[in-house]
This record gives sequence, structure tokens and C-alpha cells, in this order.
Amino acid sequence: MGQKVFFDVMVSLDGFMAPEGMTMDHLNEPDYKHWMRKWGELTKWVFRQQFFRENLKLGSGGEAGNDNKLLEETFNRTGASIMGKRMFDAGERMWPEDAPFHTRVMVLTHQMREAWERPGGTTFVFVNDGIESALSQAQKVAGERDVRIAGGANVVQQYLNAGLVDEFTIHHTPVFFGEGVPLFSGTNDVMNLRIKRAHVSSDVTHVTYETLR
Amino acid sequence: MGQKVFFDVMVSLDGFMAPEGMTMDHLNEPDYKHWMRKWGELTKWVFRQQFFRENLKLGSGGEAGNDNKLLEETFNRTGASIMGKRMFDAGERMWPEDAPFHTRVMVLTHQMREAWERPGGTTFVFVNDGIESALSQAQKVAGERDVRIAGGANVVQQYLNAGLVDEFTIHHTPVFFGEGVPLFSGTNDVMNLRIKRAHVSSDVTHVTYETLR
Repeated sequence: MGQKVFFDVMVSLDGFMAPEGMTMDHLNEPDYKHWMRKWGELTKWVFRQQFFRENLKLGSGGEAGNDNKLLEETFNRTGASIMGKRMFDAGERMWPEDAPFHTRVMVLTHQMREAWERPGGTTFVFVNDGIESALSQAQKVAGERDVRIAGGANVVQQYLNAGLVDEFTIHHTPVFFGEGVPLFSGTNDVMNLRIKRAHVSSDVTHVTYETLR
Repeated sequence: MGQKVFFDVMVSLDGFMAPEGMTMDHLNEPDYKHWMRKWGELTKWVFRQQFFRENLKLGSGGEAGNDNKLLEETFNRTGASIMGKRMFDAGERMWPEDAPFHTRVMVLTHQMREAWERPGGTTFVFVNDGIESALSQAQKVAGERDVRIAGGANVVQQYLNAGLVDEFTIHHTPVFFGEGVPLFSGTNDVMNLRIKRAHVSSDVTHVTYETLR
């Protein structure tokens, strides 16, 4: 099979990864454009899962069915992640000390910064020379495991349009955001895609697509 | 149970009902922005189905599995349809004489025009006084059966945002359009939705959502 490059994202039914108003400026204003309510509806299925709760130190308990298994598999296959600077900046404020990756994470940025090691095995490495460099660094450290393009939407779009993504999973929750950050925007329209796998739960659909070369 | 108002649409993975360039001006130029190739990829699953082929007089044969059953059920439940003028104008050029509805079809338009009866039981009725009037006329003639909001995207959005839709089915095909007519745009973000039913075939996902009041 070999090492894969993938992304795995939660998306509103109208195609947004984040609601309007969910930006660094308004992280402390959950009522601003109701971003917190919307984000909560999008992600509530994941906050119920045992694996997610343990990994983010949210407490024990939680569901242990198919949805949980999917999350655990996604975590276990990931040998390194790549994310944009805005996602990192938000995460830096939101993640626990013991950040939930437990692997090397490449952060795409123009900022020069030393690698930042966290308890629990996560090390953030700041990459200044573009998406392909970040990917080859991630592939090296991921070993036998896969490389996850963690987000945000713009970073996902860059890798997808560059033809560097092997497969991706979309978790669609039945909620409308109205406005926000679209997952897909001006996406390369000549990709050859196939449905690889699909699961449906009571309140989320999980569909994995693979790109054929 | 009672009579329902629904829509049932095919959508690209990036959320478009129609690719850029697929307009009346370019119907005879299939290479214009590759609209025909994209549209073909979106709809190829449906052109393979026995029921669809028979109903559009495309010839006998075709698949008779789950996808076919879904199409047949959707047709059979529909007692009347509502569509926008642009969809009607395109259809007037594309449908066979014996138009594929076989019921009353309300066409939303500012144009005054006599009802237009087609062989096979389809009658187009031109409604000039808005979406609620069209809906109540459709509900009257649909009898025990349901009312389908046939499209296009703008008409679907109007009914959805007015809170007049009971359920809807999205057929997602793994194709990207890049640009086009989005199904959802500025959608009312306080709707309460639930997944009602989902099927996955080899190259399309069918998910039905219901709106809770």
C-alpha cells in the first residue's frame, strides 16, 4: 500500500469548515455571529466519542461505537501532520499542554521559530519554504504511517490542487452555517475521484474518497 | 405522515448543482468551460438507470438495483412539481415531447402564459404570484402524493429559507466543478435537521435529511 497523504475534516451541509465569525479576534466572544453554537453543532458528535475525549483530556466515558473507531483509526494511521499558521495559532490557545497529536507537526508559516516540543510527544516544526518541503519533511518522519493535512481549508486546498492528496474523508453534519470558510473553493476540476468507503451514523455521514492518478 | 414538500438534487462534491458555463447561451457549446463533461460526470449514474432511461425515452435496459429503486420511488411519490423559469426554459429544449413529469408542474415566472399540456400527462402551469401560491396550488393537485421542488438552486433556496421544505435528498457524486451554481448559498442557519436515510453506491451517495419544526 505505502504511505498515504490524506485529510479528514468536518464540514457543514453547506460546505463550510468554520462558521463566519470564528476567528482569533472573536475566540472570546462565542455569541459573535453565533459561531460557537454553529461550531458546536458541527462537532458535537466528536465530543461524545471516548477516544476524542481521552485524547483531548476532556474526561473519561463517551461512546465507543463506529464513530469512535473511525477517530481512533485516523489517529493511529497518522505519523505526522501539516497545518497552516492560523490553525496553529488557534490551537495554541485551545489545545491542552499535552497537545493532541503526539507526533511531529509541520506548521506552514513565514515566521522563523525554533521547533516547539510539547509533553506527550507532539513537536511543532515551523516550515518556511512551502508546502512541498513541509510534505517531504512530514513523509520522512512519518515512517510507515501516513501524513495528515490537518487544515485549515486553505492549506487543504493547496495540497489538493497540487495533486498531492491520495485520499480524504468528509464528515458531513446536518447543520447549515450560511456563511463561513468553505472547504472547497476553486477546486481543481479535473481530478479523478472514487468513493472508497462510507459510514452513516445517526447524525453524521463519513465518506472517504480516493484520488486516482 | 401526510403530504410532504421535498427536493431531490444531484450535487458535485464542492456543492454545485450546475457547472459554470451551463447556461442557455451555451447549451449548444458543450466544450464551453467543459460544462458538458462536468455535467456528464455528475449525472452519469442516473443515465445508467432503467427507470430514468424509460422515463426520458432514452431506450430500454439499464441498471435495476438500489439506485434505480430510489429514482422510481422519488418519481412515484411526486404528485406535482415546482420549478423556476430558467429550469423550464432549458428543459423545454431538452425534454422529449412527452415531458418526464406526468403530473402538473408549476413554473415560477413573471411571464403570463396559458397552461401548456404535453402528451403523457404533464401540464405546465405558469404561476405569477410567488412561491407560496405555487406551493398551495401544487399541494391541491398533488392529492395524496408529495410536492417536489424540482429546482433550480435559487428556487430550492427560496423554499428552504422560507421554512417550507419537509425533507430533501442530496446525491453527491465525487466530481469537482470548481465554479458553478451552488446548491446552498446564504442558507438559513437555524434550521433543525436530521439524517433520515442514507444509501451509498459505487459512485454516488444518497442522503435524505428532514427538517424538524
